[in-house]
Amino acid sequence: MVCESGSVRFDVQVEVRLREGVADPQGQTIERSLPHLGFKGVEGVRVGKSIRFTVEAPDEAAARAEVDDMCARFLTNPVIEDAEVTLR
Amino acid sequence: MVCESGSVRFDVQVEVRLREGVADPQGQTIERSLPHLGFKGVEGVRVGKSIRFTVEAPDEAAARAEVDDMCARFLTNPVIEDAEVTLR
Repeated sequence: MVCESGSVRFDVQVEVRLREGVADPQGQTIERSLPHLGFKGVEGVRVGKSIRFTVEAPDEAAARAEVDDMCARFLTNPVIEDAEVTLR
Repeated sequence: MVCESGSVRFDVQVEVRLREGVADPQGQTIERSLPHLGFKGVEGVRVGKSIRFTVEAPDEAAARAEVDDMCARFLTNPVIEDAEVTLR
């Protein structure tokens, strides 16, 4: 979407995931509960966050740079979490 | 991945989102904070969950049916949340 200022509005999804090896008690609880509800064959449950928003920027490269910076400084804890950014 | 039993293991992502109109205080807090950190032009922040796991099933249709049932009965609160299922 092109805005009045000439910049573009992008739809952003940031998926925040715990890094491999970091314990995920929420995922483990789900995995242990599923067989009792009759769901078989489920393994490796990991629970992360999905953050959606729109961002206004001159172009896609600028939008991606701003979102990457937001992830590193605010939306994730880089010690234990990874972020995957999708722009549309 | 084909398993010994002849069934297939699928990678699943379930994105759980609050329905439109449901208040999202976590998203609002992020949105209010971003300008103070120098991030402009961000709007409509919504925070959901991203649940990843693998499921073993005879085929993709069976896997999708099982995951849809899991979403309705266990992974989401259908009154306030929507789920989007991606299988690979």
